[in-house]
Amino acid sequence: MKKKLSIPTITRLCMVFQQCDELQIMGILRVSSTQLGKAIGVPAHTIRKDINCLGEVGDTGSGYDVARLKAHLRRALGFDQIRRACIVGLGRLGSALMDYEKFGASGFSVVAGFDSSVNRIETMQTRMPVYPAYDMKEVIQREAIELALLAVPAPVAQATADVLVASGIRGIVNFCPVVINVPETQVQVRNINVINEMRVLSSLMTLGE
Amino acid sequence: MKKKLSIPTITRLCMVFQQCDELQIMGILRVSSTQLGKAIGVPAHTIRKDINCLGEVGDTGSGYDVARLKAHLRRALGFDQIRRACIVGLGRLGSALMDYEKFGASGFSVVAGFDSSVNRIETMQTRMPVYPAYDMKEVIQREAIELALLAVPAPVAQATADVLVASGIRGIVNFCPVVINVPETQVQVRNINVINEMRVLSSLMTLGE
Repeated sequence: MKKKLSIPTITRLCMVFQQCDELQIMGILRVSSTQLGKAIGVPAHTIRKDINCLGEVGDTGSGYDVARLKAHLRRALGFDQIRRACIVGLGRLGSALMDYEKFGASGFSVVAGFDSSVNRIETMQTRMPVYPAYDMKEVIQREAIELALLAVPAPVAQATADVLVASGIRGIVNFCPVVINVPETQVQVRNINVINEMRVLSSLMTLGE
Repeated sequence: MKKKLSIPTITRLCMVFQQCDELQIMGILRVSSTQLGKAIGVPAHTIRKDINCLGEVGDTGSGYDVARLKAHLRRALGFDQIRRACIVGLGRLGSALMDYEKFGASGFSVVAGFDSSVNRIETMQTRMPVYPAYDMKEVIQREAIELALLAVPAPVAQATADVLVASGIRGIVNFCPVVINVPETQVQVRNINVINEMRVLSSLMTLGE
């Protein structure tokens, strides 16, 4: 079943998956759409509608069976498939990402790091292969890398994204505090922007509910 | 005007503000709700409704004047006010955040860092004062800090959040890959979760539009 879903629906379903994961760790067996909606910050009926987009889970009424819902989402969202990723820009943030241990357990295999400084590449101690930026296209294609975590300085973000697009990458998590433009039919971008999150908190203090 | 707005509306308005900022840098003077909606990933009428929540901007029809919309949002969302923030956990990610230069220009003043390792505190070279974790409550109250960027190891995230709540903090940006529970009438949390963003990209590859 390859149904077309909107980006907001997919985003919420990924959050539901994350919630199921945490509920399972806590040993909670059942969850209602009201509880899920509350955790995610949307109405319960939105959660039910999103989940229904993926077909029958098997039970409703008195809520969802957490394990069954999680397995259903895993299959429907394609998390059974390991996705290969790389980290582009190995400054403090990029290095911190290289040390992050949750990728493997979450179905992602980070197989390469890239940096424009050959000196940095040669001196850094890492668990994964690191390459100079000029090898990016070749390595991405050879290693069949689909995802990139972009952590380069903002002024070179767009130029680096252009190389990623030309290399055939399919998704970019952008940590640079600028919008990057990519051909949207070809590559998807998710922005991680700490200033924006701080602004939301600040606004909530000013006029939140 | 202190109107109560929903969290999704505030989140989108902050993204509109960010877009205005970037449009201004590019020298673009006018923008339509269609263009804003496309950049943010929601329908144009949602953008218009969100902006209308804040009262009259002054022009519509042929789009918004970028500078006027930005000034309007700045005032309405309370960005004129400087918010004081701290970084909790000074490992690789926390240290990277300390070096991040955009806080000041964005109306945030990061005035303290905290870490449980006294040795780390004593040896690290920083531009801002750093304190041992046991001084957290005292420093947060003395310095009137409202926001915390939480970058501690996941197993101590909740205990650290509890101390932040007891210190009177009003907002937390949570970088730990676990949900933290706080009294929601008192403290707001925004989660930054790289795995979740990668999952959204992965799902989009599997079944996206």
